[in-house]
Formats: sequence, structure tokens, C-alpha cells
Amino acid sequence: MATIVVEVMLKPEILDPQGQAVASALPRLGFNFAKAVRQGKRFEIEIDGEPTPAQIAQVEDAAHKLLSNPVIETYVIKVEK
Amino acid sequence: MATIVVEVMLKPEILDPQGQAVASALPRLGFNFAKAVRQGKRFEIEIDGEPTPAQIAQVEDAAHKLLSNPVIETYVIKVEK
Repeated sequence: MATIVVEVMLKPEILDPQGQAVASALPRLGFNFAKAVRQGKRFEIEIDGEPTPAQIAQVEDAAHKLLSNPVIETYVIKVEK
Repeated sequence: MATIVVEVMLKPEILDPQGQAVASALPRLGFNFAKAVRQGKRFEIEIDGEPTPAQIAQVEDAAHKLLSNPVIETYVIKVEK
């Protein structure tokens, strides 16, 4: 059993109010390490056995059609374990 | 400049309706690779220079206090680049 991870982030040129909210909350809590914060989504997809290239291509297709909005978001696909 | 990534996922025993919605939408679109899907959050925190152990400890603290709800979520901290 393997886990395929799809990480979806807003494109850099797209405003990210959630990330900005976190970035402005951090100093109020006494944390001054952050220059900028971006918030995105992470999907962990469990599959049977080792992922085949065909499955990865399917995940890529699903990431494009369902998990992300390609107009404003980018995604990265990773295989874990 | 480095990026510290905080990945926040619901604990395995916590119901994840967002992940379930994705898992049931995939077959409707013709994708049959997924056994289960979990959805979580991903924070990309930009910092100046290389992260120090003290900064990582601060991020850990912020992840616990602000970025996650430790009752129902777990987090993983990674340094990228």
C-alpha cells in the first residue's frame, strides 16, 4: 500500500487571504520568523500496492480536473512510502 | 531564503468529510485508483536565511498554537531548499 500526495497551492501571483491572515496573526502571538505565508491544500490518496506510471498519470489527470483549479492553482504530485 | 512547510492533517480516527467527498467524486469521473482520500492543509512559511534550531522550535510552537488544532489534527514540519 502506498500513498500518493497531491499538494495544491495558489499560484504566486494570486492573492492568498488565508495565508495573509496567518502571517498577520503570527506576530500577535509573538512569532516573528515569517516573511510570508501561503496556505494550500494537501490530499493523501491511498492506493493498493506500488503506484504504476499509468496510475500516476491518472492522479495527474484527477489533480487537474478535480483537486485543483488550474487557472489559479498549481499542484505537485509525490509518492510516499 | 528558505521555506518551512507545515503539513496539517486530521488524525486518522477523526472523520474527514472533505476527503470522503473527493473519494466519492473520483469514481464518478472515471478514476478508480483511490482506496481512501484524506484532505489536509499545507502552510509554506518563508523565512530569511537558513532556519536555525530556535526558529524551527518557534515554528513547532506556532504549528501547535495557531496552525493546527492538536485535539483533532497532527502536523509535520519540513524544511525545503
